Amino acid sequence: MKFVISQLNPKIGDLDGNTRKIIESIKRSRERGADLVLFPELTICGYAPEDLLLHQSFIDGMQQRLDQIMRASQGIAAIVGLARRNLFSGEKGLFNSVAVISDGYLLGFQDKWLLPTYDVFNERRYFEPGNETRLWQIGGKKVGIVICEDIWQHAGYVDLSAYPRDPIEEMAALKPDLLLNASASPYQIYKPDIRVKVCQKAARTLGCPVALCCQVGANDQIIFDGYSVFVDKQGELAMLGKGFEEDEMLIDPDVKMAPCSVEYDPMSNLYQALVLGVKDYFQKSHFQKACLGISGGIDSALVAHIAKDALGKDNVIGVYMPSKYTSKESGEDGLQLCKNLGITCLTIPIHKPVDTFLQELTPFFAKKPEDVTEENIQSRVRGTLLMALSNKHGYIVLSTGNKSEIAMGYCTLYGDMCGGLGVIGDVIKTHVYDLVRYLNRNAGKDIIPQRIIDKPPSAELRPGQKDLDSLPDYQIVDDVLRGYVEDYLRVDSIAEKYKIPIETVMNLVRKIHHAEYKRRQGPPIIRISKKSFGVGRHYPIVQGWM
Amino acid sequence: MKFVISQLNPKIGDLDGNTRKIIESIKRSRERGADLVLFPELTICGYAPEDLLLHQSFIDGMQQRLDQIMRASQGIAAIVGLARRNLFSGEKGLFNSVAVISDGYLLGFQDKWLLPTYDVFNERRYFEPGNETRLWQIGGKKVGIVICEDIWQHAGYVDLSAYPRDPIEEMAALKPDLLLNASASPYQIYKPDIRVKVCQKAARTLGCPVALCCQVGANDQIIFDGYSVFVDKQGELAMLGKGFEEDEMLIDPDVKMAPCSVEYDPMSNLYQALVLGVKDYFQKSHFQKACLGISGGIDSALVAHIAKDALGKDNVIGVYMPSKYTSKESGEDGLQLCKNLGITCLTIPIHKPVDTFLQELTPFFAKKPEDVTEENIQSRVRGTLLMALSNKHGYIVLSTGNKSEIAMGYCTLYGDMCGGLGVIGDVIKTHVYDLVRYLNRNAGKDIIPQRIIDKPPSAELRPGQKDLDSLPDYQIVDDVLRGYVEDYLRVDSIAEKYKIPIETVMNLVRKIHHAEYKRRQGPPIIRISKKSFGVGRHYPIVQGWM
Repeated sequence: MKFVISQLNPKIGDLDGNTRKIIESIKRSRERGADLVLFPELTICGYAPEDLLLHQSFIDGMQQRLDQIMRASQGIAAIVGLARRNLFSGEKGLFNSVAVISDGYLLGFQDKWLLPTYDVFNERRYFEPGNETRLWQIGGKKVGIVICEDIWQHAGYVDLSAYPRDPIEEMAALKPDLLLNASASPYQIYKPDIRVKVCQKAARTLGCPVALCCQVGANDQIIFDGYSVFVDKQGELAMLGKGFEEDEMLIDPDVKMAPCSVEYDPMSNLYQALVLGVKDYFQKSHFQKACLGISGGIDSALVAHIAKDALGKDNVIGVYMPSKYTSKESGEDGLQLCKNLGITCLTIPIHKPVDTFLQELTPFFAKKPEDVTEENIQSRVRGTLLMALSNKHGYIVLSTGNKSEIAMGYCTLYGDMCGGLGVIGDVIKTHVYDLVRYLNRNAGKDIIPQRIIDKPPSAELRPGQKDLDSLPDYQIVDDVLRGYVEDYLRVDSIAEKYKIPIETVMNLVRKIHHAEYKRRQGPPIIRISKKSFGVGRHYPIVQGWM
Repeated sequence: MKFVISQLNPKIGDLDGNTRKIIESIKRSRERGADLVLFPELTICGYAPEDLLLHQSFIDGMQQRLDQIMRASQGIAAIVGLARRNLFSGEKGLFNSVAVISDGYLLGFQDKWLLPTYDVFNERRYFEPGNETRLWQIGGKKVGIVICEDIWQHAGYVDLSAYPRDPIEEMAALKPDLLLNASASPYQIYKPDIRVKVCQKAARTLGCPVALCCQVGANDQIIFDGYSVFVDKQGELAMLGKGFEEDEMLIDPDVKMAPCSVEYDPMSNLYQALVLGVKDYFQKSHFQKACLGISGGIDSALVAHIAKDALGKDNVIGVYMPSKYTSKESGEDGLQLCKNLGITCLTIPIHKPVDTFLQELTPFFAKKPEDVTEENIQSRVRGTLLMALSNKHGYIVLSTGNKSEIAMGYCTLYGDMCGGLGVIGDVIKTHVYDLVRYLNRNAGKDIIPQRIIDKPPSAELRPGQKDLDSLPDYQIVDDVLRGYVEDYLRVDSIAEKYKIPIETVMNLVRKIHHAEYKRRQGPPIIRISKKSFGVGRHYPIVQGWM
């Protein structure tokens, strides 16, 4: 008995397109001699369809596509993810299920037991937990099937939840020959390692091989990195799917394979996640070209590099928008960067629109001194210029803010926060440097000019301005982000753990909460960390804590 | 035995401020001779604290405040809402509870059974369902206690969920003398009627009086309208709390009261909800003054009127920003409106900044014809002007878009969508007219000039532009919004129900989904309908359905 792990890249809600992909993969697998194909969680609609699930016609649509897939599965079995109606009693009207199909017939459904409802996951909003387990006779084997989270509890890797049941433990009594898991497991640095460990733990408990099929691709803010897993019955990793692209792995669980290992450079991995995030956002929304502001600083340099790799150099338009505070070096560095990347660079000075605004506004400023108002006008003029190019030529504007400055509110709403996608909005400033150094090292030359890396960060919105005038060192900001935003630590624990004065921690935590109102109107952010400021974080804007 | 229903307005996360309010209310109630005070759901932290609940120090903070409240409750009992740790097994680490306090002691906790996880509610993200019920001996009576949603299932008024247990039915066997419900029930037109029905149903099943204590006030996008309920053991409505303000109702359940009824004008009610939404957003975030663009159209006229009532006329600054396409009538109407309301009106023409932008950009427009780009520049210049006044003077900008245009994407991101709060973003255009007519009727004069009501809607961004050039009649748009966004009906059912050609429905539904990317970056919207485009609606941006 041989099977294929079909690591697909579905598009949310594109029932026809996804069904076509599923049927083609079934066809290819049959031609390769497979008895079974395992697809990712919610294959037909893509993960996560969110409130589309509340439309009855959407649920009906999945059922219709399942019929098509059944008709296309002569001579082979397939495990296909979809949402199906809960026709029994229960709080919610749907199950998160896989259909088990064989030779044109529906053998039945296996429903997901453990429904993650934390961080980016909202499954209890839509789904009723399944509660039955059984084995399925496929190709002469007794096959156990579970869905994503169902396998995680057993290995003790679930955050913020402690499910009272453990599907793996309950399945052990049934003695399966093979365990299959249909997943949609979002990217997070180091997560491939964890997925392997989770499968190994299940294999050792069940004494059988375990295959875990991941969704791949980006859907809005969430990146699915692929890296599907197959471990043998001893719990040795025997095959790992490709990262960041579709893959179809043909596996004979009865043939002993040489063990393999998970090896990757974390920065290379992170970079690929960001590239995929941009690429899929554009492809899936039928856009080709991006524009972005080039400031001569490190953030826009990194975003330009990512965009070039995601869209091709001919599809990226850099826009250099100097003001009277822009240094000569910034201009040189920005232009050199665009030249190195081979992308177009337009130059549109902002002096005139800024001056015109100030002329019109001065009578209404009541002789108050210059402050952040004048800085924000510069930033909003740049945003308006980028959006005009976007409107006229059909570009998507890429926003270049990093997580550390977004955390601090060190950014202008409707200014540099403009854009269809916040490419590095979940990348802390220290990782921005790491990524840029990795890119130069990898290229064997300074694609990103060394001066961009060396100079102290500055928004250049007033004479001689430096980020350090308003903020502590980014290393400190990033430690507080880890401690407070990712790990929910107490302020005093953060101070102790990272050796930062408690007043500094308090001050930064207050800044984080105070900037909530800006982030609420920021662009969608490609999520790469345990806790992004985009999807998966719900905080009140007006609140009295801290 | 007498008790007080204490309809409080807590601020999210303000544990000290809320505790102070609770203690003062306990003191007042004791002085009035009450044996017990009933507070709303999650009294100590306000509803809904969202991810603040994930901070252990936040949970500890509530426990500490509960100790303070206990010490202040000599000689009286109190039922106080808070989140408490789940020390037993279970998926989630918290319960949504009320502490039952008597004479300085903690009698115990009653946990919420039914945890709404739909629309604006995310309770399964944080809470484990309670599963025990009991009666509490207070003032010689056997008192049953439930929390918000717990009482709704029994009356059949729960949407999108069907809980397998019914706390009211299970309590019936215990034969309580009195049922108390601690609630935080968001505003929705006609909801006061429903709350009364829900209490009546429980009273008739249990054969005892029912008191339901509502939170009042606005927290970000959600309005709590108050209108706490007391029904006697025959199920007759005997007392209704005030709408839109705090209230303390002293009740003796053994004294027969004259029945009362729920009576209100829906438009007056809706107007008060919007006023409260603005008032609390400002007060709770310590802002005093608002500015908004005055276009001479009906939307900004309504928002100015709301702002005046919420903040006082001296705290509202209208800004009239004419372009070359602005008609003479718009200027006259806008200025007349501000005069009628008694608010300041600044005039800042936008010709010069718009022309400067066009001069700088024309070389990059590749001789393409005028299109939406030039319209958006006008809108973004206005946004930048308003934001500059906001930055310089500490105003919050009020966004004036209505639900119908936001649905259609008939609005400019970073332009008229700028603002700290979308005041009428959940009000459909037909209700905008109804509200304005109500206001003039109520005032007995044309506070809002009749010409503003009579003229066809126009964005005035190009010569002779009318909304009807781009959109069908707003009556049709609003019907599709009700059918598709609020009720999740199929496209053909909407066409049939509202007698609209199916192609028109399809076209509007596509527009709704297409504009998702704009709304994601829009301001927070005061929610007044069953389904707002602000909080409580989760749709993917990039998706292939429709």
